[in-house]
Amino acid sequence: MLTNEYYTQDQHGPYKFFELGNFQLESGQALKDAKLAYAIHGELNEAKDNAILFTVMFSGTSKNMEHYIGGGKALDPNKYCIILPNQLGGGLSTSPHNIDGPQSMSEFPDISIGDDVVAQHRLLTEQFGIQELQLVAGWSMGAQQTYEWAIRYPDMVKRAAPIAGTAKCTPHDALYVDVFCEALKSDPAWNGGNYADPHACEAGLKRLAHVFALMGLSTEFYKQEQWKSLGFESMQAMLKGFWEGWFLPMDPNALLAQGKKWKTGNSSVHTNGDLAAALKKITAKTYVIAFEEDMFVPVSDCKFEQKLINNSEIKVIPSLMGHFAMLGLNPDDFSVIDQLFLELLGAPC
Amino acid sequence: MLTNEYYTQDQHGPYKFFELGNFQLESGQALKDAKLAYAIHGELNEAKDNAILFTVMFSGTSKNMEHYIGGGKALDPNKYCIILPNQLGGGLSTSPHNIDGPQSMSEFPDISIGDDVVAQHRLLTEQFGIQELQLVAGWSMGAQQTYEWAIRYPDMVKRAAPIAGTAKCTPHDALYVDVFCEALKSDPAWNGGNYADPHACEAGLKRLAHVFALMGLSTEFYKQEQWKSLGFESMQAMLKGFWEGWFLPMDPNALLAQGKKWKTGNSSVHTNGDLAAALKKITAKTYVIAFEEDMFVPVSDCKFEQKLINNSEIKVIPSLMGHFAMLGLNPDDFSVIDQLFLELLGAPC
Repeated sequence: MLTNEYYTQDQHGPYKFFELGNFQLESGQALKDAKLAYAIHGELNEAKDNAILFTVMFSGTSKNMEHYIGGGKALDPNKYCIILPNQLGGGLSTSPHNIDGPQSMSEFPDISIGDDVVAQHRLLTEQFGIQELQLVAGWSMGAQQTYEWAIRYPDMVKRAAPIAGTAKCTPHDALYVDVFCEALKSDPAWNGGNYADPHACEAGLKRLAHVFALMGLSTEFYKQEQWKSLGFESMQAMLKGFWEGWFLPMDPNALLAQGKKWKTGNSSVHTNGDLAAALKKITAKTYVIAFEEDMFVPVSDCKFEQKLINNSEIKVIPSLMGHFAMLGLNPDDFSVIDQLFLELLGAPC
Repeated sequence: MLTNEYYTQDQHGPYKFFELGNFQLESGQALKDAKLAYAIHGELNEAKDNAILFTVMFSGTSKNMEHYIGGGKALDPNKYCIILPNQLGGGLSTSPHNIDGPQSMSEFPDISIGDDVVAQHRLLTEQFGIQELQLVAGWSMGAQQTYEWAIRYPDMVKRAAPIAGTAKCTPHDALYVDVFCEALKSDPAWNGGNYADPHACEAGLKRLAHVFALMGLSTEFYKQEQWKSLGFESMQAMLKGFWEGWFLPMDPNALLAQGKKWKTGNSSVHTNGDLAAALKKITAKTYVIAFEEDMFVPVSDCKFEQKLINNSEIKVIPSLMGHFAMLGLNPDDFSVIDQLFLELLGAPC
């Protein structure tokens, strides 16, 4: 077990833990004494029908999506009980660095998107007795979880908003994951996943950060020097202050565990590889949200899946922040997404 | 000096050398006993007015563009004298690995796009007495050279076809160069540019190859499994057989020298940083050719510069091969480009 001050209540709290016990994984292994970290905003009503599940992206925690939650916003905790489950392997939940014993560090078992969703389902049903979700939403890897939820538990998910992510990871997106994982593992200090200093892999994490900087925004963002609007003095300052600053505190094995999960994300496993059949299972009113300049998950990839979902609409957001429009650093992006959540939550279903 | 069997007449010939002597660079340094390697197809007529200059891209040689040259094609050697100059630092011309002395390997001086163009101008004027070019064309870094030619020597360039490249490298494109150079330099065997085995940096070259695989094609290319049409059995087979196969034989320092040149490419140095003023100097009839799915140099970047050129048109080619449409591996892409060359060469000017 390594102590990493990044994955703490100080940094990402308040969050709670749900005990999963020895949690059976799709790989066949069981994750020992597994814990699911989650944040909760608002209160569950007596009918237990005001819950929203807001899933979390790669390298993110429940804290990173909280700007969408608040009075006067679509995700209003005065009205809804909003639960944000952190990914298994994501740093707060059971993860390579925070367990001892035979599943620690390089021996951490492979986790799937389905594993996360089953763990989240147990949290919602066993801990809270929730049988109905007004909305499941999530961005990027959060969209992967959203699709998996809507396909696996159609009776429970009334509305879904997968944002800039796919039900089945595309080959190009998988290649992207390979490239940034290679960038990280290129650091000799990674040592096959068995490092003693939690921050040993600085060089690798920086390289990974630069790959994200390359694919995460758009050429126009940089050309128009939109980093100025984020308070940076130069593009280099943004590379350092934003991208490197984001990744450097994180645990390399946690990122790699999430990367494996990302690239193997595939909800068509429920229908013998037939993605159309899997997406047909979705009964939720669905907004597939895509970002116009997204290089991870281009609009075409989102549209391709949206067309296979019965009660769905595609919503394309024209942001120069590409995949990272979801961070809402540009207030306009935030407003458009917030408005879509509001619209979807108001839609009858 | 290292012997690298890749950079030989066997692999890339026939090519000739033009002796530049001690060649003054824009950086202030002189490149000692500099040699410009070039290929030539067809014969210069007596009036010396049938010449075409076809410049070369990153990691490429004159050999790699020869599929555009032949009887029945636009670049017909029965009609035109087509000269393909290899980049300084590109492996065939004077480059880090092929010189001895104080400018060898890690000490190779920085070369600019302008340096290449001045060297090429000397080749054409001193060696051949050429004062008029029917066409200057080039792809990617070749487009950078094309713009530089048209801006620097407007009286000489009758027609220009910069393809998927810019007169001024964009910040995002420069970041791309940084990312793939970092991928290469992450290999400890690179050793700051001072390796003894020409093929020592296999791990770094593979990482670089994967970054190219990520940015070079399109998500749809991989999703539609278009690698099948190129004769590969799987995406992995294409990664290995095509992308790694392309870069592994090359010299790391040559790639890094070209990378530096790419990211600093900026024809606005002639007009005190005013790109619009620089592009206004172009008098050539110009086709700016862009590839629809290009992630290196998106259509928007090409359009932005095209609009600043007086006698110009934008031509957007809808290929799923993205930036690498130029290789012509898809016969349709080849035909469209060949046809554009033909049309442009037939245009009065």
